[in-house]
Amino acid sequence: MKPSKAVETQTATLAEIAREAGVSAPTVSKVLNGRADVAPATRTRVEDLLRVYGYRRRRAEATRSPLIDLVFHELESAWALEVIRGVENVARDAGLSVVLSESAGRLTPGRTWADQVAARRPHGVVLVLSGLDESQRALLTSRSIPFVVMDPAGDPGADVPSIGATNWQGGLAATRHLVELGHTRIGAISGPSRMMCSRARVDGYRAALETAGVPVDGSLIVTGDFHHEAGYRLGLELLRRPDRPTAVFAGNDLQALGLYEAARELGLRIPEDLSVVGFDDLPVARWVGPPLTTVRQPLTEMAEAAAKLVLDLAREPESSAARRVELATSLVVRSSTAAPAGSER
Amino acid sequence: MKPSKAVETQTATLAEIAREAGVSAPTVSKVLNGRADVAPATRTRVEDLLRVYGYRRRRAEATRSPLIDLVFHELESAWALEVIRGVENVARDAGLSVVLSESAGRLTPGRTWADQVAARRPHGVVLVLSGLDESQRALLTSRSIPFVVMDPAGDPGADVPSIGATNWQGGLAATRHLVELGHTRIGAISGPSRMMCSRARVDGYRAALETAGVPVDGSLIVTGDFHHEAGYRLGLELLRRPDRPTAVFAGNDLQALGLYEAARELGLRIPEDLSVVGFDDLPVARWVGPPLTTVRQPLTEMAEAAAKLVLDLAREPESSAARRVELATSLVVRSSTAAPAGSER
Repeated sequence: MKPSKAVETQTATLAEIAREAGVSAPTVSKVLNGRADVAPATRTRVEDLLRVYGYRRRRAEATRSPLIDLVFHELESAWALEVIRGVENVARDAGLSVVLSESAGRLTPGRTWADQVAARRPHGVVLVLSGLDESQRALLTSRSIPFVVMDPAGDPGADVPSIGATNWQGGLAATRHLVELGHTRIGAISGPSRMMCSRARVDGYRAALETAGVPVDGSLIVTGDFHHEAGYRLGLELLRRPDRPTAVFAGNDLQALGLYEAARELGLRIPEDLSVVGFDDLPVARWVGPPLTTVRQPLTEMAEAAAKLVLDLAREPESSAARRVELATSLVVRSSTAAPAGSER
Repeated sequence: MKPSKAVETQTATLAEIAREAGVSAPTVSKVLNGRADVAPATRTRVEDLLRVYGYRRRRAEATRSPLIDLVFHELESAWALEVIRGVENVARDAGLSVVLSESAGRLTPGRTWADQVAARRPHGVVLVLSGLDESQRALLTSRSIPFVVMDPAGDPGADVPSIGATNWQGGLAATRHLVELGHTRIGAISGPSRMMCSRARVDGYRAALETAGVPVDGSLIVTGDFHHEAGYRLGLELLRRPDRPTAVFAGNDLQALGLYEAARELGLRIPEDLSVVGFDDLPVARWVGPPLTTVRQPLTEMAEAAAKLVLDLAREPESSAARRVELATSLVVRSSTAAPAGSER
């Protein structure tokens, strides 16, 4: 049995893996089940062989727990609850419970997060805004535990099943709305540039300006981090300029709220003196004064789609269901946008 | 063996329960483990006997999964995320994962929620705003699975271990703050009267007025449901009165935001024309315009305390730790409150 052949045909059996590792078949089973009573060196050797031979557990169906894992990089996000609701909806219909965890910091000595997942044998794993490294992927794959990235950040990596949103289209729609109201000095507060969704939104903003024949002024584009504080700080910066913009695409709703505060502090009225568009459509967007015009990201539906996809993959690993889907964003016009002061419109 | 004696001493063994039910001991084990392969009639008979004899599983420790259950009545609540974070913090430190579920609607045919919990054998269960009925309590008790109610509503029922907050003190502090600013026409928008926390907050409001010698005008107290829409609708009602209040204790933050919208619609400025105090201190309270003065309810800490208590009870069922704790609320003064217009202060 040569690794190269086994990788091609994926026919290595548990007994063959055990022989190659110099251990008993039950020991390989223990590793697959995430049991703690295996020496670390043995575990590492077995995991390596499982990966090399591309081993996939058969009959995984029979041993699954009625669980689905939902993993956040961190739970701080203002929209985490909408994602939880989506996964919970699908889990409930399927008779499953949701195990929630944060990947940041969740390492117990000697037992990684992926080990814990392997030990509880869920139907699948939905990851939010966090990827898996190579060994974690191999570990889940060998147990036939499928995973899907619910990925508002827009950069899941090749070959990873994922659900995203149309960020570029959203940035385009937000900015077109402002152009159509008559604005020509339109600022943008971007999210962090390492997140692809930030780049896509700002690229949509540029495309809207360019196709409307409005020159892009690079100095009106500033980079935040999607938090309230950045919207406030960068908002003050933009609004204190002598040639301040009459409208700002704020990148997301939290930055829009920070921008609201900056405008209040400077005595600028929204929308009379400043139009603001957000992104996400968090519940709070309806409640602030004035209610925020924003781009709706269908977070609950995205989470539902991710959970459904992972359950499809659990039932049918070679399913032909699309593995990379972006759900549509849509502009929601409320009261924070209007024609610029002194405009003829 | 008579039930009455067994209840007194709680010494019925699994074998005795089996004999009484006319089944084998392994069948009783299957019921305790929530296995599906037991006839419904048999299951019911065994559960009844477990309850009558006050059976408690021994050595539960050995068979527990590294899980803690967190159950919401419904996930719609704006503060659910803060509760999730608190439980997640404690679970992470203890090397456990959190299983999240909604009790509303979570019934799969023939298998109740409590059955599912019994089958997964968590260390314990934290319930948010939802109680357990008698048979659910008996089912968890017989498996030695402890539970704690994290109970912002303030009415967990006798003998139920629970963590709450000092709602009455919060209503008192909110209203005292308004009285000290010089207000005498102070309205209150209560939450639903079936929730004890609503009553406690409004009672605190009354106590503040009475101890300050300000007459209580019952017509200024209206009853909402803790949602944004109620704050808006009842806010319009209060503010359209010819003798409108100069300040309102809004019952919670969402109702305060609805009240903001009503004030905007009527052209009343906050705090110049109207002072507003909320309750909860959701993140959004800092972000609205003007930032909201509110009573902070330490939701994350309350959830942490509930999770810690349930793990204490798992380790030591007869632990002498306090079973009913209320954590302190605190007034957070921001910009939505000021002296009434025309006051000398």
